[in-house]
Amino acid sequence: MVVAEIRIELKQGVADPEGQNTRKALELLGFKGIKGVRSIKFFEVELDAPAEEAKKQCEEMCRRLLANPVIQKFKITVK
Amino acid sequence: MVVAEIRIELKQGVADPEGQNTRKALELLGFKGIKGVRSIKFFEVELDAPAEEAKKQCEEMCRRLLANPVIQKFKITVK
Repeated sequence: MVVAEIRIELKQGVADPEGQNTRKALELLGFKGIKGVRSIKFFEVELDAPAEEAKKQCEEMCRRLLANPVIQKFKITVK
Repeated sequence: MVVAEIRIELKQGVADPEGQNTRKALELLGFKGIKGVRSIKFFEVELDAPAEEAKKQCEEMCRRLLANPVIQKFKITVK
């Protein structure tokens, strides 16, 4: 059994309101020196499959359900 | 300037409805062999501070805003 980590983040240039608002909130709390905050979505999927096969399955999961290819990119790491 | 990665996940034993529903949706789409799905939140914070200081600041951010210590744990990696 393998654990696949799926990291889904916004493509370069796409607005990240969650990140921007988190930054504002942190600054309001008094944190200094923040140059940017990006929000990223992560899934850890336990799969009963060999590593190579698990990676392919996770790519398919991203394409079909987890990610929006118009604005997001994904990266899969199998452990 | 450093980039700190903040990984916020649910503590062991806390229900993860987002993960459970993602799993169900994936199974409905026909994916086989899924043993579990966990949803994790990630922030990438660019900070104008030395690495040691950045890590401390991020821990403080988690305690004060980003994480809920009752149900979540966090891990910070400074690059």
